[in-house]
Amino acid sequence: MSDLLNRLKARLAEIEDVEYAAAILEWDQFVMMPPAGGEGRSYQYATLQKLAHELYVTGEMGRLIEALGRAYASAPADDDDAALVRVVERQYRRKTRIPAALVAETFQATSFAQEVWARARANNDFGAFQPHLERIFDLKRQVAACFPEVEAPYDALLDEYEPGMRTSQVRAMFAELKAELVPLVQAIAARPPIDDSVLRRGYAPADQLAASQQVLERFGYDFSAGRQDLSVHPFCTGLGLRDVRVTTRVDPNYLSTCLMGSMHECGHALYELGFPARHARTPLAHGASLGIHESQSRMWENLVGRSREFWGFFYPRLQAIFPGQLGQAPLEIFYRAINRVTPSLIRVEADEVTYNLHTLLRFELEVELLDGRLAAADAPAAWNAKVKECFGLDVPDNRLGVLQDTHWAAGLIGYFPTYTIGNLASVQFFNQALADVPRLSAEIARGEFAGLLSWLRHNVHAHGCKYLPADLVQRVTGRPLGAKDYLGYLKKKYSALYGL
Amino acid sequence: MSDLLNRLKARLAEIEDVEYAAAILEWDQFVMMPPAGGEGRSYQYATLQKLAHELYVTGEMGRLIEALGRAYASAPADDDDAALVRVVERQYRRKTRIPAALVAETFQATSFAQEVWARARANNDFGAFQPHLERIFDLKRQVAACFPEVEAPYDALLDEYEPGMRTSQVRAMFAELKAELVPLVQAIAARPPIDDSVLRRGYAPADQLAASQQVLERFGYDFSAGRQDLSVHPFCTGLGLRDVRVTTRVDPNYLSTCLMGSMHECGHALYELGFPARHARTPLAHGASLGIHESQSRMWENLVGRSREFWGFFYPRLQAIFPGQLGQAPLEIFYRAINRVTPSLIRVEADEVTYNLHTLLRFELEVELLDGRLAAADAPAAWNAKVKECFGLDVPDNRLGVLQDTHWAAGLIGYFPTYTIGNLASVQFFNQALADVPRLSAEIARGEFAGLLSWLRHNVHAHGCKYLPADLVQRVTGRPLGAKDYLGYLKKKYSALYGL
Repeated sequence: MSDLLNRLKARLAEIEDVEYAAAILEWDQFVMMPPAGGEGRSYQYATLQKLAHELYVTGEMGRLIEALGRAYASAPADDDDAALVRVVERQYRRKTRIPAALVAETFQATSFAQEVWARARANNDFGAFQPHLERIFDLKRQVAACFPEVEAPYDALLDEYEPGMRTSQVRAMFAELKAELVPLVQAIAARPPIDDSVLRRGYAPADQLAASQQVLERFGYDFSAGRQDLSVHPFCTGLGLRDVRVTTRVDPNYLSTCLMGSMHECGHALYELGFPARHARTPLAHGASLGIHESQSRMWENLVGRSREFWGFFYPRLQAIFPGQLGQAPLEIFYRAINRVTPSLIRVEADEVTYNLHTLLRFELEVELLDGRLAAADAPAAWNAKVKECFGLDVPDNRLGVLQDTHWAAGLIGYFPTYTIGNLASVQFFNQALADVPRLSAEIARGEFAGLLSWLRHNVHAHGCKYLPADLVQRVTGRPLGAKDYLGYLKKKYSALYGL
Repeated sequence: MSDLLNRLKARLAEIEDVEYAAAILEWDQFVMMPPAGGEGRSYQYATLQKLAHELYVTGEMGRLIEALGRAYASAPADDDDAALVRVVERQYRRKTRIPAALVAETFQATSFAQEVWARARANNDFGAFQPHLERIFDLKRQVAACFPEVEAPYDALLDEYEPGMRTSQVRAMFAELKAELVPLVQAIAARPPIDDSVLRRGYAPADQLAASQQVLERFGYDFSAGRQDLSVHPFCTGLGLRDVRVTTRVDPNYLSTCLMGSMHECGHALYELGFPARHARTPLAHGASLGIHESQSRMWENLVGRSREFWGFFYPRLQAIFPGQLGQAPLEIFYRAINRVTPSLIRVEADEVTYNLHTLLRFELEVELLDGRLAAADAPAAWNAKVKECFGLDVPDNRLGVLQDTHWAAGLIGYFPTYTIGNLASVQFFNQALADVPRLSAEIARGEFAGLLSWLRHNVHAHGCKYLPADLVQRVTGRPLGAKDYLGYLKKKYSALYGL
């Protein structure tokens, strides 16, 4: 049996190498590549993706997985090899169920749709994008139909990003959130707005980057196993277990973009840097799901990075970097500014309170689009009605509405709920960390993060994707994932901030 | 037949993509990768190399190549498709003749030997490296034995870098050079040395890079299809037809390192950027050989970059960048300094006159090591004796002698002659360009390089590796490659400089 396992691991190691190489091509494309390189790069990237797929779906892999699946069926759930076989069985089933022609068709349709979407957004021309939106949901219905065993078609899409999660669970989660968040947003909107002009002074980009680097070093990001560069859209990418890179962007007139964005990507990077060396070049050395990944970025960005404790420590250091802009501004002004709540039209600019209403809106719409209850042509009106319902705002044009995100054009249907799962899990994990290690708050207030990082390493990072996300949350916190901790955190923090 | 050809091209396109991806991994490793990423990267790189090889040596490829080889046997030599089939036949034969086990063994032996060599050089400990040197030459003898049809075993190795070139030709070329260069070097050594202290003042790295960038832009390097970065060893790499990057290094106390090195890599880059778009993702979109590639880098570095015409134009611009260091130094002082000839121990620092004696020395030694006439243990003494003969210098220790280059540790046996082939071809091409377009010298003196670049594009670059290097030289210059032009150039230029 160990011979079969070794053969499987050897095949998987090469597949991991090819996937890492594809990730390097992508990092380079967004960070380093000269503009004329785009056409050649798209071929290179597509070829590596195709090869990685072909290396996975061979008959030999199928036979190895079947034999090993039987052999490990009754092994303990936390055995590394048993977990590896489980993960690979799941991936193999997904890859082989969807016909190659459908994969290729989806790839082409979404490549083209993303170009059309970019132009449609620039021109505020939903009509140009509409047939592509129809086509993509049609293809996604076909993908979902490859998994007839699921409860709802959307389950089959969700499963790619959040293994094991069901639509009915997401629906319940959002219902609970909506019931509490909409009144909370209304209550906050009725209070005097927080003034965040302190963030909107001129901040030299080089100094913003220096401040971010200080924070990342403090958090424990290892610059000898990573780097921070600029890119149009910030991201984190693992190019190997000891090469995990982050990017950021800088707005010279808004301090949060670079600083809070850097903390966010750093959270992703600390997760990837925490996978154990023994899982190198295996599918276990990945995040448990997009939601769990997001729980790590949101924890460092929000639970740490927007906390009073952190800023009690770091604000004097930030003032030293920006004496002209911040020297006269008290900590409280700054703390309130970075926690300002404003109903807004754009998801990526949303605060902690309103953020999940944005993802809720997309979830509700994409389920209806997939079911066919909503026609693509009616998506803008449906979008705008939900914005009115959630935020009380009118959408002046589709650039600020249905055309704002690239996800649908990219075929990422079932992706949005993972943002909210991440938010919920971030608080549930953080509360557990505080319960397990009560001194953590005091440490953060002294600028010490090794205790929190070590708790995360041990409880979350060390497992990679050995456990399904729901099992991981249960294992770490002793409870299933829920909205209770998150809502409790928001209500406490924002009641104090807004005097509710 | 066109169906078979299309199938071949489709396979080749994917192989090209994988090879480009491997090149991106390498560029990133030397320019961007954080230090801890090395171990993972070496696996990724090895896997892509292995996949590219496996994709090439399939039975299907063999059948396609055989059928197409027959079909195109009598096609005109300059037909694109016939040339493609010829190039692929040659590559396929080389890849399939050498057993996979020998390839793997060589890969492992040279990976390990390079680490040992780096330590051995640092410690001046040839004894540590000696068994690896023996082993590598033993493996290379086995590789050569896979090609029993060659005239001399060394031919089989040379052919990898300089297709079609034979050892007997290289020997004749070096004999002609040696007969003239040794007396020339002696005559120069008998004259008062040129003072190059003007190059050895403090030059701020950022300003050196700015000067280099100005030169590259003037030469016609397209920064929208490339970039220049820093690396320990300068190199040029093609990551696609429209993404060709160069690197450089900067010595704050020696102006030539960055400036002349940048011109050299730019020459390589202009070649790669000149391959025609219709050859994209085919094996034709590569240099004809390492020697022809080097002819391009040496032409821009030496024939243009060390010429009186170029500096008549650019020196005032360089003085404007470095007024303190160069403001009072006349052009003639600067021109003489960048053309100073000094017998020296280190190849990579050698001037135009002595350079080929360095490669000659290595060629003679590696032929003897391969034949078994010279034992690895005796290599240092043999090296030192040749240095005495060529340069009249004593080698104080092996760091400055037999341990100086990484080539043998890396298994690059048969590579050194290509540097000299490049030097010879650079002058033969340049003379032809001047004969074809007499105004070129005047243009260069005005800082206009489009005429030269256009001649190169049309006569050299546009062919990629469609023709064997010897055929290309014959086609472009109407004569076989020889040492006459090169020796004539050196003697004229350096007689004037040294008053011989």
